Formats: sequence, C-alpha cells, structure tokens
Amino acid sequence: MRCRGHKGMIQMINVAVMGYGTVGSGVVELLHVNHDRIARSAGDSVRVKYILDVRDFEDSPYAGLFVKDFAVIENDPEVSVVVETIGGVGVAQEFTRRALAAGKSVVTSNKELVSEHGCELLKIAGEHNVCYLFEASVGGGVPILHPISACLAADDIDEIYGILNGTTNYILTNMFKNGATFDKALGEAQEKGYAERDPSADINGVDTCRKTCILADIAFGRNIAPKYVRTEGIANVSAIDVEHVSTAGASIKLIGRTVRMPDGTIASYTAPHVLTSENLLVNVEGVFNGIVVRGDATGETMFYGKGAGKLPTATAVIADIIETGKTIGTGAFLGWSEAGEEVIGDPDLLESRWYIRANMDFDEAAVRFGQITMLGCDENGAAFITGSMTGIRCAELLEDIEAITVYRVLE
Amino acid sequence: MRCRGHKGMIQMINVAVMGYGTVGSGVVELLHVNHDRIARSAGDSVRVKYILDVRDFEDSPYAGLFVKDFAVIENDPEVSVVVETIGGVGVAQEFTRRALAAGKSVVTSNKELVSEHGCELLKIAGEHNVCYLFEASVGGGVPILHPISACLAADDIDEIYGILNGTTNYILTNMFKNGATFDKALGEAQEKGYAERDPSADINGVDTCRKTCILADIAFGRNIAPKYVRTEGIANVSAIDVEHVSTAGASIKLIGRTVRMPDGTIASYTAPHVLTSENLLVNVEGVFNGIVVRGDATGETMFYGKGAGKLPTATAVIADIIETGKTIGTGAFLGWSEAGEEVIGDPDLLESRWYIRANMDFDEAAVRFGQITMLGCDENGAAFITGSMTGIRCAELLEDIEAITVYRVLE
Repeated sequence: MRCRGHKGMIQMINVAVMGYGTVGSGVVELLHVNHDRIARSAGDSVRVKYILDVRDFEDSPYAGLFVKDFAVIENDPEVSVVVETIGGVGVAQEFTRRALAAGKSVVTSNKELVSEHGCELLKIAGEHNVCYLFEASVGGGVPILHPISACLAADDIDEIYGILNGTTNYILTNMFKNGATFDKALGEAQEKGYAERDPSADINGVDTCRKTCILADIAFGRNIAPKYVRTEGIANVSAIDVEHVSTAGASIKLIGRTVRMPDGTIASYTAPHVLTSENLLVNVEGVFNGIVVRGDATGETMFYGKGAGKLPTATAVIADIIETGKTIGTGAFLGWSEAGEEVIGDPDLLESRWYIRANMDFDEAAVRFGQITMLGCDENGAAFITGSMTGIRCAELLEDIEAITVYRVLE
Repeated sequence: MRCRGHKGMIQMINVAVMGYGTVGSGVVELLHVNHDRIARSAGDSVRVKYILDVRDFEDSPYAGLFVKDFAVIENDPEVSVVVETIGGVGVAQEFTRRALAAGKSVVTSNKELVSEHGCELLKIAGEHNVCYLFEASVGGGVPILHPISACLAADDIDEIYGILNGTTNYILTNMFKNGATFDKALGEAQEKGYAERDPSADINGVDTCRKTCILADIAFGRNIAPKYVRTEGIANVSAIDVEHVSTAGASIKLIGRTVRMPDGTIASYTAPHVLTSENLLVNVEGVFNGIVVRGDATGETMFYGKGAGKLPTATAVIADIIETGKTIGTGAFLGWSEAGEEVIGDPDLLESRWYIRANMDFDEAAVRFGQITMLGCDENGAAFITGSMTGIRCAELLEDIEAITVYRVLE
C-alpha cells in the first residue's frame, strides 16, 4: 500500500530537449535510467518526445527522437516542457522566447542567457502562465536557487557569496596543495577536461560573474546586470601570493559575492579573496562549489556539491522539469523586478581586512596601515594583512605605492 | 514593472497555528515581519487567522487570534493550512488527523509524530488531496527534505548521514575545543539554553534517531520505524577518547546514518562516530547541523546551517506553508511505502575503519587486527584505529576482550 494515497489527475509530461551536448544528453539519460523515481516525485511519468540538434546521432538509442526543425516542437501541443541546453544567447534566446510564447515551460542550464536576459524571459513566461526555471545554471548539481526562493522564502537575505566556478577552484586548489604555477595548474585542468580549450570565460571570472548575478537576482528580487558587476579573474594569482597566504593558514578562492547595503542598494562583485580557516568555504576544493547564504532569520546556511558535470547538472534540470508541473497555475512564479544602475551599491564601501603585497617594507606598511599581520617579504616587497577597513580607505593608504596584489579577506 | 507578469487566481492563504511555543510564536512573528517577501514567493498573501493554545496570552499583539477549541479551526472552511507546533504524539496526532480529514494541509516541526506516524498521516493527506509537510522536523532552518524530494528527485540516493542534533554537537564540540568533561559541557549547554532541563532525548540519541528515520523515509521511499534503528547516544564519550581521537586530528560526532545495502535493504543507525579531517562534516561545530547526501548522479552534496532555534525553524515551517499552495492538485505528494522489518538492513555488514580503546597493549592489538594506527595508551589499555572491516568482523576480533570504546570511523 502506498502512503501517498491517490493522486491528482494523471498526465504524461512530454519534454523536448534542445541541444544534445553534455548536459542535454545527461538529461535524456537520467530521465531514462531513473524514470520510476522521477515519476514518483513528479506524480506523473516524464518522457522525452523530441531532441533538437543540428548534428546527426544515427547510432544513438534515441535516434528516433531527433529533429532539426524547432517548429516541430513549437507546434506540438503535447510538449509542455522544453529543456534548453544549447548555450549562449542568439538561437537559445529566440527558441526560448518562442517556446514560452507557445505556452511551454522552459528549463535551462544556460547561465549566460539567464544572467543577460532572464528578466525579459521571466516576463514572457509570466504572461503565458508558464515557467522559466534555471536551477542548473548555478552550482550544477547543488540545489541552490530553489532553496533560496522556496525554502528560505521567509528569510530576508543580507548576503550571498560562493565559489561558483569549478575550473578556477580546481586550479587554485592545485596551486595551494601541490605548489603548481598558474600555467601548470591550468594545463592539468585542461588535460583532465575540467577546463575548456578556451578557458577565458572561467579564468577571467565572467562565468562566476554571471552566476553571481543570477544568485543576486533571486536573493534580492532586483535585476543585477553583469555589466554592473565588477569582475576580476585569477590569472594574476601568483605562486608568491600562494606561499604568503599559506603561511597564514589561509587560502585564495575566486568568490562571487552580493551584499545588501545599509542604503538598500545591492553591491555585487567577483574577485579572488583570501579565506581564513574560519570561513565555511575554505575547505571547498577541486571542482566543487560552495555557496553561503546569510539571512536575518536562518543565519548562515551553506550548500556544497559538484558544481559541474554531466549528471549533476542534468539532475538540476530534471528537478526543474518536475517543478514546472507544480508551479503552473499557482501564481507563485519565480521573478524579480527590472532594475538599472540606481540599485547598484559600491563594494568599496564594504569593510574587511585586506591581504596586500606591495613594494614597501613592514615598517612603512605599519606606518600606513597601523596594526598589520606580517606574512613575509621578498625582493618585490612585503606581504601582510591589514585591519578592517573599506576598500576606499585601503586604496587611499596605497596611493603612490606600487601594490602588486590586493585581495579582500573573508573570515 | 514586474518581470513575473500577472499571477494565477489571487487568494489569501489563511493559516491556523497550533501551539504558541518557541517555534509557533516564531512562525507568527516571521509571517508578520517578512510578509511581503513571503507573499512574493507564495504568490498569495499569507495571514494567521487563529492561534490555538491552552494558555492565555492577553498581552500578545496577536491576543485577538487566540482560541482554545480546535473545532473552531476544524470547522472554518477559510483555513487552508494548519501549523502543528504542539509537539509529541497524543493531541498533536489527533488534531493533525482531524485537520487533514477536514481538507486542510498540515505543516509541522514535530519529528516525534512524523517519525512514528508520518506514513499514516501522509496517507490521510493523500486521501483528502492535501499536504502533510515537515521540513522543519529535520535540520531546523537547513533546507534538506525539500531538496532531497524535489531537487535531487532524479538522483538515486545511496547514502544519507548527518549531524542532526545541535545539543549533542555543542557538547562534543565543547569537549574537543575546551577539554570540558561531558558533565561540564552538558551543564554549560543547559545554562546557554542549548539543552533542555531533561536532555535525555538529545543525549541518548532518540532525537537524532527520529530525524534519521525521516531522512531515510524520504530518501529511500520506504517507512523506517524508529524501533528498527539501533541508537547509541553520547553519554559514554569520555575525555580519554577525546584526547586520543584529537591526536589523530579527528573528531567525535553523533551521526545518524542510512545506507542502501547491496541486497536492497536499508541499514539505518545512530551512534557516535570518529570523523577524520577529510570528512565533510568534521568542521560542523556547536549547535550547527550538517547533512551529506550521496547519490549516483550528483555525487556528494552537503547541507549546513542552524539545526534549531526559533526563527530558523520557523523559516522552514513557512517554506512548507508556501509549498502546500504549489503542491495541491498536482499529485506530486510527498510519500513513502509502509514497510516492516523485511526492508531493514544490518549496519554491521558495513565496512569501515574502527576506533577502539580496549584493555590490551598495542602488540596484542596488532596481532588481532593486523595493521593498526596507534593513538595512545593508558592504565586501561590502548587506543588505536583499525583497517577497514565489517562491524561483525570487528566484534569477532574483540571477543573475550574488554573493549571500553568502539566507534566507527567516517573518512
């Protein structure tokens, strides 16, 4: 006997998957392999009716499902959910618009599209009483968007930050654990398939910036456009900094961070940070992601797991497919208000300690910064950690000085 | 302009809160303070129409809402959700049955009732097409039941374990950090209000056992009754063990753990474990909770946060109130199959290393266990960590020996 008793009206959820790459094929595979468990959670059977891809997959066990013309999906009333794993803007945006306008919910892992045009696409979804969901666009298999919007709905969120990019975290971990140089660590990441042949979007922080924007949109309810988010990558993290930071028992992580400022503006930025051993994310290593949410009611909550990969990301996509069936008609749609520069706060107003390596000796550093924690010095100057101050004050004290490295410290 | 466009039909969600204790009053308070944010997530305004309590609260700002007769709530068709924060079985079970039978969803933080009678109450809920939800019963403010059932729905879960009781974790942390004895640590926990005057349900592991059962029910879809879950508390954790374990850079945590066995049975148990520095939960300290889920698709996912407290727990209750509005009518009800002893697996078949303190010297330990890691010895004997073996094998090797402490090691 089942404890859940009888269900609501039975219906099959017909899904179309657009883009048969890593994530898309993972979704098709998981829907097949874990069909029963998924059906139990969804309350309905979920089946893939079409797979849209420009390429041919004649040897695929799903060969019969492939189509090349989006109109086939767009015009099939049986298809209620479209999975967009094409990536990028362009055609992904066009197909998403048309699918939503055709009254189909769209689920995606496309962080570029969501961070750039999520607000517009959510508006179209709302107008057609369907869902646009993107749990897979942040944190891969780590449930984060849904817990923020649903489980923490009663919580007023003050801050959200995290290690959002597995490639850069793998590189930084390798530099700290094995003393690898940045170039060597990047090379190994590429060999292992953790970094793409063109890793720039990861290395320069663009990927982290996009995810930071999506987290901010959902946590604070206003649209934070990537162009307003100051972004610094990890290409300049040097073996010398790694050595100095290690002596302090700390680590360097690429962090995407958003804080609600006292004046109500929202300060968002992406940059390498020095994390002390007290920080919840200091032990998040390799390709793993970790995200910390600080709210007025729940305090600090942390989410940790595989931030990328075929099956973890596919799991998040499927969670959203199930969610579409539960959300439609309730009016409880995900969404946030459009916003421009006026809501953007200045991260330089945030206080913290700072890791600095600059062309001066400890005496001069002490004269300028007062009490400092000395970490070490070399021919290029001294490395030290300051007391707590704003980024503006820190910059003032470094005026006329050749500062090689300046990283914010997160305790 | 709002991005979410227009909503589904508008309706007010009328809630009745039963039991105006710590959690119940927190729910009323949060629904008031964060009303707008909650309404945005729910898609509807949520208001408290009644508060049921045997006591009088004439000075409360909500004095006008109090009632003493459950029938008032039961017979008011406007009330769609009832929050049960009475606790225990007895009247809480009766009111829950009647509320569900009256077509009202019930949301609770009552782990005793859910672990003992959740299966029956979910059945009643299903028969009346309403929800019985209990996110707040495990992990307090940590979103865990919802992520497992929704976000990880596509994942076949192999194992779930965690630090589920803040009181015992506070005591153990205090013993490790400050060298406090168990009695001293317990006394301080009571002074700080982290432990109740009668802390037995926490100390003897019953609270952790109940939460372990609820996690197992949801993760594996079968009803695991507390009576089948072997439970050992922390009352016997000694300063000597703390000292020996510390020398290994490890820690002792009270863990509730459930593993899917190769034969399909489900092995559930609660006991103190030695966690090595590699374990994700080793740094979960004080009153915090941490839960690890291991699935075939997502790999390891970890959830961390405040496991108890007025507002964190209230946040989880409110998340469920919102969830009821989304779930009804979709057939996607939470639930698991009834099950008896036949699905219960034997934890002693699980392999691991073991921490042992027994009345023997290292030479004898090495003879019996082969390669061991020596931690130290005292007048009562030697403390060491064995290689990997089943609990059955470990017990065989300890036959005829006076073993003082035997804890499983989690890497």
